[in-house]
Amino acid sequence: MTSSLSPTPSPDRRAEILRTAAEIFCHKGYHATSMGEVAEAVELTKAGLYHYVDGKEDLLFSIVSFGMDRLEAWIEKARELQDPLQRLESLVSEHAAAITLDGSAITLLVDGAEGLEAEHRRRIRARQRVYVEFVRQNLEQLRVAGRLKPVDTTVAAFALLGAVMWTARWYRPEGRLSGAEVSEQITEIALRGFLK
Amino acid sequence: MTSSLSPTPSPDRRAEILRTAAEIFCHKGYHATSMGEVAEAVELTKAGLYHYVDGKEDLLFSIVSFGMDRLEAWIEKARELQDPLQRLESLVSEHAAAITLDGSAITLLVDGAEGLEAEHRRRIRARQRVYVEFVRQNLEQLRVAGRLKPVDTTVAAFALLGAVMWTARWYRPEGRLSGAEVSEQITEIALRGFLK
Repeated sequence: MTSSLSPTPSPDRRAEILRTAAEIFCHKGYHATSMGEVAEAVELTKAGLYHYVDGKEDLLFSIVSFGMDRLEAWIEKARELQDPLQRLESLVSEHAAAITLDGSAITLLVDGAEGLEAEHRRRIRARQRVYVEFVRQNLEQLRVAGRLKPVDTTVAAFALLGAVMWTARWYRPEGRLSGAEVSEQITEIALRGFLK
Repeated sequence: MTSSLSPTPSPDRRAEILRTAAEIFCHKGYHATSMGEVAEAVELTKAGLYHYVDGKEDLLFSIVSFGMDRLEAWIEKARELQDPLQRLESLVSEHAAAITLDGSAITLLVDGAEGLEAEHRRRIRARQRVYVEFVRQNLEQLRVAGRLKPVDTTVAAFALLGAVMWTARWYRPEGRLSGAEVSEQITEIALRGFLK
């Protein structure tokens, strides 16, 4: 009987709320979205929604943290590969595919951190730096092996990630190319360039 | 005597206001900045500031429009060159240099349009599409000349611009590399890749 007054938040329901809120934030913008709209979209009262999240900023932080969890899982998967170029290829293709195929939480990583409070932003930025550093270290290994042009590996890491992450800004599922085609092309172009 | 009550807005003063406001928006975020803070930074009263701009959204639109003016000037300059790769090189190096060397108004092009009202955002997006289309057409000419790998030129155009525009997100003037070094490297990597 007490459960309807004070329900135990279910992890599945919470994941669904994060996913739906991510879509609304992406579509409408974080600042322009109210908690009332999020509550309505997940068929909860505002009070009901606050059983799952502490507020709008906490909701954004949870979404962006969920996106970072996924990025870190791909790093772990890539670490199992022997070749640095294969590691980069694995990571970049997972990342590009996630942007084009399942969208919002990963897409928000590009812009979402701007809306966070200082301490939350600091924590996300620290995790993002680990990601950039993983890319840079693999480029460094390619350099040592004589497989890299004489470029700065920090600039190259950001150029690579920029090409991939920018996809969140322009890709539209209703466009000419499928998500799979775009993510495959982006991976190829970001890693190997487009000039013969 | 009437000039202190109702000053004629000077174009130079307006440009200075746009530049200063762009810096504050970049540093603190558009949504978090008040018109009072902008007025204080340019040593005007709020009423004085409203002689130059109609409000915060108009201020952002003016800044982003100024950034687009510059991008379009670089397109015109690039059009004078004969070779499509040289045209891309000219455009991309101007763009990258502007991000690293004179900063805020160009940097705001990456994120600023999100803060605009629908009609203003539509007008900026239309101008941005012309820019992407210019890049794509040059890639298409390279393809016809047999100088391109079998890639989709739309995806390649966005990958190229992503690598360049992402620089606004990570470059810091106080970092290890100078603005000139970063923009040179970004141009090279975005156009020719980093692998041997």
